Amino acid sequence: MKIAVIGLGKMGWQIAKKLHEDNFTVIAHNISRGPVDEAKSLNMVPAYTKEEVLAAFGSDKPVVWLMLPSDVMEAELDVWLKLLPKGSIIIDGGNSDFRLTKKRAEKVASFGSVFMDVGTSGGVWGYKNGFSMMAGGDEASFKVIEPVLKTLAKPEGAYHHFGESGAGHFVKMTHNAIEYGMMESLAEGYRLLKEGPYKNIDLVSAGDVWQHHSVITSWLNELTRDALKENRELDGIDGFVAESGEARWALETAKDFKIETPAMQAAFDVRLASQKGEVNFATKLLAAMRNAFGGHKINK
Amino acid sequence: MKIAVIGLGKMGWQIAKKLHEDNFTVIAHNISRGPVDEAKSLNMVPAYTKEEVLAAFGSDKPVVWLMLPSDVMEAELDVWLKLLPKGSIIIDGGNSDFRLTKKRAEKVASFGSVFMDVGTSGGVWGYKNGFSMMAGGDEASFKVIEPVLKTLAKPEGAYHHFGESGAGHFVKMTHNAIEYGMMESLAEGYRLLKEGPYKNIDLVSAGDVWQHHSVITSWLNELTRDALKENRELDGIDGFVAESGEARWALETAKDFKIETPAMQAAFDVRLASQKGEVNFATKLLAAMRNAFGGHKINK
Repeated sequence: MKIAVIGLGKMGWQIAKKLHEDNFTVIAHNISRGPVDEAKSLNMVPAYTKEEVLAAFGSDKPVVWLMLPSDVMEAELDVWLKLLPKGSIIIDGGNSDFRLTKKRAEKVASFGSVFMDVGTSGGVWGYKNGFSMMAGGDEASFKVIEPVLKTLAKPEGAYHHFGESGAGHFVKMTHNAIEYGMMESLAEGYRLLKEGPYKNIDLVSAGDVWQHHSVITSWLNELTRDALKENRELDGIDGFVAESGEARWALETAKDFKIETPAMQAAFDVRLASQKGEVNFATKLLAAMRNAFGGHKINK
Repeated sequence: MKIAVIGLGKMGWQIAKKLHEDNFTVIAHNISRGPVDEAKSLNMVPAYTKEEVLAAFGSDKPVVWLMLPSDVMEAELDVWLKLLPKGSIIIDGGNSDFRLTKKRAEKVASFGSVFMDVGTSGGVWGYKNGFSMMAGGDEASFKVIEPVLKTLAKPEGAYHHFGESGAGHFVKMTHNAIEYGMMESLAEGYRLLKEGPYKNIDLVSAGDVWQHHSVITSWLNELTRDALKENRELDGIDGFVAESGEARWALETAKDFKIETPAMQAAFDVRLASQKGEVNFATKLLAAMRNAFGGHKINK
């Protein structure tokens, strides 16, 4: 099966590589040439332009996995819609607002193609562990792309089709809002250990004990422990923490449906405040966690 | 080595059994006779009274593990102090306020004995998985009780001595405050899935995908998924969620040390409000999670 992976950033690159190694014909495209050269050196099908992507599909119906920042998705999609033949499947694997995804699916349908949403978690570790994927969109098209998800889930990941268009991004958005709240809770706790009444609590040991069948045992706690082990004072991390939209959309949606979300709100507000300079050991920990799972920039 | 386990409730029972099976001589005592009878039937040393506990130690220095609700600890400790010989080691394995623990350690020292704090996490699953234990108090006495912790940590738990008296309970209190925040974040998210714009999101599948190498993979999420699998609508759970002190103490301590804890505060406030009748699918989930890890009563 041929699939184009568009956007060879941290996540897109892992996805392209994992599919390639499981015998998909991966057409690799990126806005800059470097990653395409690298894909070529690994024997993927390099495509330096969108036209080369199309040419590589030949007479096959294109299946195109877009792994792009959410703020360029709309414009990129419009360009692709002008180029792709009817019957193409376009997958948005990024973190898009599910409300836009639903509209985009209608637009894509008006061009005779199908738009699928696949929220993808697991960070840059997904290549090794398998990704955790949340899909939405047309059932028949889901069946077409299922082999792709099956490969990306190997060996220990998972995927599920949650329903109509946008459902995948909605579940992924919710996942990320939970993530904000869990990260904030951990960051507050570790700061309390560090700056509270006992001056010699070993944070790495706390994280380690907590990672051995305590109630808060979690991947985020594991990453926190490991980040502290590497850099106990979080030297060089300035503690500005970006918010990338998902929690904001979740809070808006929760409000629309009269669902209280005080913990998510608290976590979101802390990130906004950090951008205005309210940084401390807790926000440094948030930045360190983000870096650990996502390869996000931590302003070192 | 002889050790008395006082308080054979859910946690105390697991601890007594685990020590007994690893060849400790366990003197089992409880306020009601039933669990002592059961301990006897398993060949532990039954003690129906405190005097029988003392007699069972003979000439050995008593080591007494108290596993009691925090509101009876002070009174129980006072009774034990009148009975125990100098040189005894009294362990508080429950969730006590670390500020009281420090004072109690001084009181116990004035009687010529030693008070150790061992915050114990892992819920009723600790028997199988091993407990996660956070110890504080005198270094020499820690060495004496270390074999106990070593056994309780088998096969996959852990323990660490965090420092002077109260440090163990302080780290455990912080753990529990993080737990409140993580639980609240998960509960808000699952409620958003259920009551948000998509009416057919399968919550169990979401929990399952999230448990396969997503960023929020955690024991709490696993328990949530499993609780929903068993009871999708959480029928019969009324959603009143108790707070047992630890988050309240953590919030007070954080305030004393000027540490912001908005996520923990949000989680705490939701529990207080639930007691006043503000219950919903999220607070039902909190109750279900508590029941899953701790065998807490969920007002079914």
